[in-house]
Amino acid sequence: MIDVAIIGAPGYAGVELTRLVASHDHMRLAVLTSASHAGRRVGDLYPALGGHVDLVYVEPDIETIVSSASVAFLAVPHTAAMEMAPALVASGMTVVDASADYRLKDPEVYERWYGVAHTSPDLLPHAVYGLPELDRTGLPGATLIACPGCYPTATLLAAMPALEAGVVDAGRVLVDAKSGISGAGKTPSATTHYCNVNESVAPYGVTTHRHTPEIAQGLSLIAGMQVNVVFTPHVVPMSRGLLSTVYLDLTTDLTVADVLTIYTERYAEEPFVTVHAAGRMPATAEVRGTNRAHIGIAVDTASRTLVVACAIDNLVKGTAGQAVQCANIALGLPESVGLDVPGMGV
Amino acid sequence: MIDVAIIGAPGYAGVELTRLVASHDHMRLAVLTSASHAGRRVGDLYPALGGHVDLVYVEPDIETIVSSASVAFLAVPHTAAMEMAPALVASGMTVVDASADYRLKDPEVYERWYGVAHTSPDLLPHAVYGLPELDRTGLPGATLIACPGCYPTATLLAAMPALEAGVVDAGRVLVDAKSGISGAGKTPSATTHYCNVNESVAPYGVTTHRHTPEIAQGLSLIAGMQVNVVFTPHVVPMSRGLLSTVYLDLTTDLTVADVLTIYTERYAEEPFVTVHAAGRMPATAEVRGTNRAHIGIAVDTASRTLVVACAIDNLVKGTAGQAVQCANIALGLPESVGLDVPGMGV
Amino acid sequence: MIDVAIIGAPGYAGVELTRLVASHDHMRLAVLTSASHAGRRVGDLYPALGGHVDLVYVEPDIETIVSSASVAFLAVPHTAAMEMAPALVASGMTVVDASADYRLKDPEVYERWYGVAHTSPDLLPHAVYGLPELDRTGLPGATLIACPGCYPTATLLAAMPALEAGVVDAGRVLVDAKSGISGAGKTPSATTHYCNVNESVAPYGVTTHRHTPEIAQGLSLIAGMQVNVVFTPHVVPMSRGLLSTVYLDLTTDLTVADVLTIYTERYAEEPFVTVHAAGRMPATAEVRGTNRAHIGIAVDTASRTLVVACAIDNLVKGTAGQAVQCANIALGLPESVGLDVPGMGV
Amino acid sequence: MIDVAIIGAPGYAGVELTRLVASHDHMRLAVLTSASHAGRRVGDLYPALGGHVDLVYVEPDIETIVSSASVAFLAVPHTAAMEMAPALVASGMTVVDASADYRLKDPEVYERWYGVAHTSPDLLPHAVYGLPELDRTGLPGATLIACPGCYPTATLLAAMPALEAGVVDAGRVLVDAKSGISGAGKTPSATTHYCNVNESVAPYGVTTHRHTPEIAQGLSLIAGMQVNVVFTPHVVPMSRGLLSTVYLDLTTDLTVADVLTIYTERYAEEPFVTVHAAGRMPATAEVRGTNRAHIGIAVDTASRTLVVACAIDNLVKGTAGQAVQCANIALGLPESVGLDVPGMGV
Repeated sequence: MIDVAIIGAPGYAGVELTRLVASHDHMRLAVLTSASHAGRRVGDLYPALGGHVDLVYVEPDIETIVSSASVAFLAVPHTAAMEMAPALVASGMTVVDASADYRLKDPEVYERWYGVAHTSPDLLPHAVYGLPELDRTGLPGATLIACPGCYPTATLLAAMPALEAGVVDAGRVLVDAKSGISGAGKTPSATTHYCNVNESVAPYGVTTHRHTPEIAQGLSLIAGMQVNVVFTPHVVPMSRGLLSTVYLDLTTDLTVADVLTIYTERYAEEPFVTVHAAGRMPATAEVRGTNRAHIGIAVDTASRTLVVACAIDNLVKGTAGQAVQCANIALGLPESVGLDVPGMGV
Repeated sequence: MIDVAIIGAPGYAGVELTRLVASHDHMRLAVLTSASHAGRRVGDLYPALGGHVDLVYVEPDIETIVSSASVAFLAVPHTAAMEMAPALVASGMTVVDASADYRLKDPEVYERWYGVAHTSPDLLPHAVYGLPELDRTGLPGATLIACPGCYPTATLLAAMPALEAGVVDAGRVLVDAKSGISGAGKTPSATTHYCNVNESVAPYGVTTHRHTPEIAQGLSLIAGMQVNVVFTPHVVPMSRGLLSTVYLDLTTDLTVADVLTIYTERYAEEPFVTVHAAGRMPATAEVRGTNRAHIGIAVDTASRTLVVACAIDNLVKGTAGQAVQCANIALGLPESVGLDVPGMGV
Repeated sequence: MIDVAIIGAPGYAGVELTRLVASHDHMRLAVLTSASHAGRRVGDLYPALGGHVDLVYVEPDIETIVSSASVAFLAVPHTAAMEMAPALVASGMTVVDASADYRLKDPEVYERWYGVAHTSPDLLPHAVYGLPELDRTGLPGATLIACPGCYPTATLLAAMPALEAGVVDAGRVLVDAKSGISGAGKTPSATTHYCNVNESVAPYGVTTHRHTPEIAQGLSLIAGMQVNVVFTPHVVPMSRGLLSTVYLDLTTDLTVADVLTIYTERYAEEPFVTVHAAGRMPATAEVRGTNRAHIGIAVDTASRTLVVACAIDNLVKGTAGQAVQCANIALGLPESVGLDVPGMGV
Repeated sequence: MIDVAIIGAPGYAGVELTRLVASHDHMRLAVLTSASHAGRRVGDLYPALGGHVDLVYVEPDIETIVSSASVAFLAVPHTAAMEMAPALVASGMTVVDASADYRLKDPEVYERWYGVAHTSPDLLPHAVYGLPELDRTGLPGATLIACPGCYPTATLLAAMPALEAGVVDAGRVLVDAKSGISGAGKTPSATTHYCNVNESVAPYGVTTHRHTPEIAQGLSLIAGMQVNVVFTPHVVPMSRGLLSTVYLDLTTDLTVADVLTIYTERYAEEPFVTVHAAGRMPATAEVRGTNRAHIGIAVDTASRTLVVACAIDNLVKGTAGQAVQCANIALGLPESVGLDVPGMGV
């Protein structure tokens, strides 16, 4: 059993990591840190975890973490992650960062979008981007993994096969995404108030959302050229779930069947990706609570437009599940261990 | 007071028309027809209307309708509307059709998308398309009005000013729309089952939704050329509300401010359209229960992409409210009468 | 037109009052105060009110209020109301208080449940409890009206006819109530976070909720004896709506028909109360957005238990609508003016 | 591995059983029957189960079932269960019935509430009522288990310790329960239409709900005397979850602490029951997706009223999870196997 520390454990990413690690066959919860809830029992704060996790949140002390665990999941906000990561990495731990701090390769891009200077740019070249379906070669043995954001995960999974196959114009990619409210995190605010978001759908952060440069970086890497991303996130009245509907310009006359062949072959060996048959589109309910990504494809032949929709659970494949998946690979465990449970559907 | 008949009154469009006409200063509910609920009191079926409408549903008999009312709202499904419209029009009534039967000018297009032959194609040239913001010149005195679908309403309002101003490429228009469940109508089915749609967002009918040719017809009319429409509707877990996010390719380097000027000028005199200031996007909650359309605008300068989002209540501006608005104009009443009530917001 | 001031206008009670007064035939919005939003335009904060209210929030200055309006609605939290009410009443205005400050006749009970001393106990005898269906005799000409809480409104309406008729044991009344989230107010907190309350139902404040003594005061007044109230509020995932299910012990063998006779006669002249026929129970959706109260009745003959359910919209009949209804009566206007609009149902 | 047949597999109970058995360490899905979906692949109907269950629904043929599995879960409606149970029991299988057919010991009570004669009354004495927390002595080796309904499960768990301890009056028990929509089953109807139940709470089936006699039977068994049950179920806008708030009359002056002692001792060894500390009430979200029951307690000392709330997931502890729990005991497996996964909470 591998001892695990979760830093920032009472946030949504942390709670979800706690849930997943609690039933992981090869991992054991050793340390759960929380600056604000230190001293409180997990089950008192989260009754859903009550019968399963018999731990008390402790202060986020580096010594404690390093001496008690060999894997650290950083489930803290950006900037807080890069404050702790250097010491944790230096200690020899496997560090899996669910924050944005090590996702962007260029610290200037980070500074431009996040408004703060990057304080450990020297670690950026060592950080492995944790989207296994894109490239898992760097993950085995990795000591610092930067897990993708929820929107980039669904969007890159949706666009990747077409871009790699060279059948679409990489000049511009349109991304119309829809997320549940948990994407806004646990802290109460006007944007998470039930009455503000219930019975309503609305775009937000159009052209300014911080996942934009990460999507662009990923797509550009795949395409081998600078991709312009138009990213329009929307908030949808549901707790979990994220759907990214991606619009790509086909460069040749391909049918749905042609594109499905590209996608099913590309993802044939992926344990967590399902490509639906022609005519079926994914619903986020299908993947709720799971690490799966479900993809549906349509083609508008008149305008040569490829429409790809990818549904994930933003807190699992979009955050905590992907972190566990990456940790599994990094540690030499079976990739699906702890993640292979069917979802509820209803 | 103008006597009103609502045909197909217990469906969602009909109930909403009943609600609006019940508090209309110049209209009076005279006849509510229903083949399946004839004999039942309105308040027994819809307690929300109980204290306000003291009528019993009656069989949809043409004689009764013609002799009791001077305006007929057709709130029946497509095909049922064109069965009744000719007789009603011939009687001299003002007929406002909320179905799809007279929206498409070309009966062959109708037949291709709806799978049935049009049975009164001779009336098509006389039917006035009921989107007043697009063109209200034909509405005064009109005797057959074809009210637009909910998706076309929001989409045309979003795209119209930019297309008219000639600042966008009309070759292809991308429409990513999101609708609440009431858009599926009142009849229970798997797609309206609470547990199937709750906590989920999903695309449906991509490239096959029947509102596609209507959107294309409208955009083409505006652009003066054939517009290819890529239309991706999504279902969102809420009862009411529709958001159409439209992506247009700017042909010149315009800023958000430039585009806002075009939109605010275009809609300056429109009583039901609000264009939000830069940085603000509309939420469907803002317009719930009202006949308003709220529009927000963003521009991605790098790719010269214009993003316009338009929020409406699918049952009001998207159906019943628009029908009343058109009837008001047709009958020479103030356009806003019966529709000028603030929404609840929460 | 009567000029109206709304104090604490951007809270939920205030916004709802703004909405109702905006379409009131005999009232005009004159002053909307807000300590935190002074200087902001109503439509900027609440786009749903945008086209209808062209006012800017101003500081809650007594002079301004008194000089601009003849009716003041206090939509501020408890304690804030009793800070302002004395000066407003002294000025000769009609003051309608939606807070808890003047509901409890005994200042010691107030202090015990609210944890603060009452600062204007001398006004308590002059305050008229604003539940017209209970007793409207004191309302015409009243200068200080204490509007009931949302739970007491639904509960008193449910229990009143049976208690008055003397057919139930007044020793103990069981109240199991269910409220939507807007009852918790506009301020974001853990208890209004979408993800905390969505897809969940839970009791809260059992035996400690502050509406308990108000319900007990009302029931005791009706029964002419001290009534013990067991009050169990629950929070339900919806924005608006409140259902109070009240359990009463019948003292004789009455059938549903017997009890229905008592209720329908008691409420025969009430413009906002509907008593459903046997077998029909009210749903909060029926009254959403309206000032109506819908009541359903069942009897368990074996145990002589009377079950009465009353559904209201907590923000309308439970708060703002009732305040307008009371103001209408106080000012000699028709009681239903501004409140007689059918709800949406869907 | 024990081979399992699920009869009526595509209904909600069946799907939930499929999900649970799919990750059960000692059970294997062998046969999934469906009269209406025979021939369809599970993953096509339920994408959430796609990667986990590689089976095709087959016709509900007794021979097939008996020859392929040793445990049969009946997830069919009442009457359908008693048509199949005799043959399955006769074959020597372990039959776990999730329907109502074998819950009521008295076939006349069954006939009175379900309106049909019982066709296998001879099996009733052999059927073991499957609420392990009430009495698990009959379960090991049982060949016919009648799993309780969802409402009875939560209600009996809430009332049992107090009744057993003899501290409450068993003459009448008041049950105010709230259920999510999945309780209504998978078949679309007006009562499951999203727009009918969304944003609404309402009682239904007051004094007539078919779970009433089952609750009465259970409580009477516990109390050793005839208990009158007043049962008021409510429908709440959420997919899953059930809360039963039970009101009991204390016969002596007990404090919350006293009652908590009774409850915590009674459930000390129960793997799936948590009794919250004083002041904490359960929310259905805490138990969503799990087999747990969370209980909260309050006491109104003035009226000597005990309020107990019990939250369960109606599809797990209320149906499928309980069926697996019972099967585990019947088969000599660890009681918690396949059910010991933490819930999501969010």
